[in-house]
Amino acid sequence: MGMNVLVGQSGGPTAVINSSLAGVYQTARSCGAGRIYGMQYGIEGLLQEKLLDLDTLLGSSLNIELLKRTPSSYLGSCRYKLPTPEQDEGVYQTLFRLFAKYEIGAVLYIGGNDSMDTIAKLSAYGERIRSEIRFVGVPKTIDNDLLLTDHTPGFGSAAKYIATVMKEIIRDSNVYDLNSVTITEIMGRHAGWLAASASLAKGADCDGPDLVLLPEVPFSEELFLKRVDALRAEKNNIVIAASEGVRLKDGTFLCDLAGGSGAVDAFGHKVTLSGTGRYLGSLIRHHLGCKTRAIELSTLQRCASHLTSRIDVNEAYQVGGVAVQAALAGETGRMSAILRRPGAPYVASCETVDVQAVANKEKSIPLSWITPDGMQVSDAFEAYARPLIQGEQIPIYVNGVPLHTRV
Amino acid sequence: MGMNVLVGQSGGPTAVINSSLAGVYQTARSCGAGRIYGMQYGIEGLLQEKLLDLDTLLGSSLNIELLKRTPSSYLGSCRYKLPTPEQDEGVYQTLFRLFAKYEIGAVLYIGGNDSMDTIAKLSAYGERIRSEIRFVGVPKTIDNDLLLTDHTPGFGSAAKYIATVMKEIIRDSNVYDLNSVTITEIMGRHAGWLAASASLAKGADCDGPDLVLLPEVPFSEELFLKRVDALRAEKNNIVIAASEGVRLKDGTFLCDLAGGSGAVDAFGHKVTLSGTGRYLGSLIRHHLGCKTRAIELSTLQRCASHLTSRIDVNEAYQVGGVAVQAALAGETGRMSAILRRPGAPYVASCETVDVQAVANKEKSIPLSWITPDGMQVSDAFEAYARPLIQGEQIPIYVNGVPLHTRV
Repeated sequence: MGMNVLVGQSGGPTAVINSSLAGVYQTARSCGAGRIYGMQYGIEGLLQEKLLDLDTLLGSSLNIELLKRTPSSYLGSCRYKLPTPEQDEGVYQTLFRLFAKYEIGAVLYIGGNDSMDTIAKLSAYGERIRSEIRFVGVPKTIDNDLLLTDHTPGFGSAAKYIATVMKEIIRDSNVYDLNSVTITEIMGRHAGWLAASASLAKGADCDGPDLVLLPEVPFSEELFLKRVDALRAEKNNIVIAASEGVRLKDGTFLCDLAGGSGAVDAFGHKVTLSGTGRYLGSLIRHHLGCKTRAIELSTLQRCASHLTSRIDVNEAYQVGGVAVQAALAGETGRMSAILRRPGAPYVASCETVDVQAVANKEKSIPLSWITPDGMQVSDAFEAYARPLIQGEQIPIYVNGVPLHTRV
Repeated sequence: MGMNVLVGQSGGPTAVINSSLAGVYQTARSCGAGRIYGMQYGIEGLLQEKLLDLDTLLGSSLNIELLKRTPSSYLGSCRYKLPTPEQDEGVYQTLFRLFAKYEIGAVLYIGGNDSMDTIAKLSAYGERIRSEIRFVGVPKTIDNDLLLTDHTPGFGSAAKYIATVMKEIIRDSNVYDLNSVTITEIMGRHAGWLAASASLAKGADCDGPDLVLLPEVPFSEELFLKRVDALRAEKNNIVIAASEGVRLKDGTFLCDLAGGSGAVDAFGHKVTLSGTGRYLGSLIRHHLGCKTRAIELSTLQRCASHLTSRIDVNEAYQVGGVAVQAALAGETGRMSAILRRPGAPYVASCETVDVQAVANKEKSIPLSWITPDGMQVSDAFEAYARPLIQGEQIPIYVNGVPLHTRV
């Protein structure tokens, strides 16, 4: 009997994080692992000894298909920053006691920056105490901001969703013979990968968003208003894709400027009118006097499993599988990553990289992929992102809605 | 050569309004109509003589398939309330002069209440002046509030979209081991059909929304808070589907209570913090002190052609076809409607009804379909709505996104 495996999911949901879980589970099973456990609610749940037996839950191949079509973290998640051993060694002692109790040989953690930090810390601590347990991270984030991987699983599906609904919003915006400015606010506080993906709406049947505002480029009110005003002369309906992370030169986020000083809600509590879309709407109305509406794509960007990229689903599965394979082969302190062969056609492979080099760092859009005026992305972005939204995973519809699976 | 046909689209977009246009166009063509024109931007565009030649635009069968997958009104739309002849006979004279100029024999108008009012007025005026032109309406509205038709094309697809994303939001809400209340605000100012459709998320894999708030039942703050408080004892994460039209006993909309007295935006302009979801969130936070988040499904409810009901697409096509057939056969002052055979299985047919009896009226959810506490819908609603979200129309993906067509 092989070693026992423990897998957890952490951070914000994505549409394909469960495909990585499927990859970990099925690969561990086929590599002859012993028992396979899931942490319920990540490290936080593990600390409360909330463990799930995955053979019981995921033993059927139909359930694996459903798992790949279930959004959000099947095992539950947490937002937990593991302290350093210097700050709180007790946490490490508890965790390694639990690993020993369940005879865990390999720990896989599916997540973003913070999760890779967890893997980095656990593997470093493990080496220090001469533990033989292997710790390997599996990348996941719609934000696409992890280093050393060409892109992160979760991004492709979010990008496909954003490009698709952007096309629909553009059609919707053009229905009346009136002037309007529609601002679509898109997730991504520190990097503009998701907002830039709105540009993938562009094609023979759609102009795409007229402007794309990114955190990578300092926002200039003057240039922005000038550009919107020029667009008004060209067309009736203007559609803007704005990252929630757009900021001024001094680093102030536009969403924090949205105002509302003196505002109270119906119960007398102070409220802030937050929102990048709301701010830009007010700005345009104030200076140009035209009708605006702001749409927040909101949580659906990260959980729309009804519209995922097949490439993304497959790669999410692969990084899960490669990570557990590496762990079973003795690697620790690693993260599985996607490596792309330069140029077209899109060909990618999967290897492990040093998790220390990934943890707590962020990858932005290269400035050379942004047009000189800072308000659109170039063909280089499209060449990068377009392959990642190819193909579809059709939901399994029961009673008219996609079927999911749950613990 | 048969008579010339003129077709327009009016009111808010839906995901399937263009299927009705496809039904009108293809049926008119197969019934031997002469030239087939489209009004660009509805009656408003017609008054400016903005006409499109549909044979040129829709002649290819691939384009018809794309049309069925294109959201929003292909021809463009307007929100125009036709005055009575007493108020402004000049408008009628202009319209009938244009009908004569283009030798129009039949006018089809795809829309909701206001559009049926337009058809009723034009047909009455036509009879008065002994015109031989036939005027027939084609029902369309996501709101499902038209009389004399079992349901309206557009509703089934919006309901399927809402039920699907509600499942995804419920999964997303359950990801952390924390207490939260999520309020999803759904369209429907006067009738709760769309908010009620959130209940279709319920199945073996999903509890569905915990509460469904509808305009049909006066909102009681006391009962609502009591219910939310009781739910908190039962479960961590509560999800509420709320119609934007929820109101107090005296008729005040909750969205108008949202507050913001004294609030100014970043530019010193007064703003109102509107929103039913925002109000309910403040209410719960104020009285129960728990974490809330409000999600607005926003415009995607009406334009998500990437996720439509096949039943709805087909019926939208049928009502278009039956309407033009009736007009060519000499009917006027009619609307095509969907008639359902009582009981299961779902079987529906398509006939015309008196448009006068439809115009300017609204259909609400029967109170007997709402649970006694007023905060859920009963099995009778499900028996009504579930058949309408069956089947899918798969988009035609090109470069990773659904392909549309445009004028």
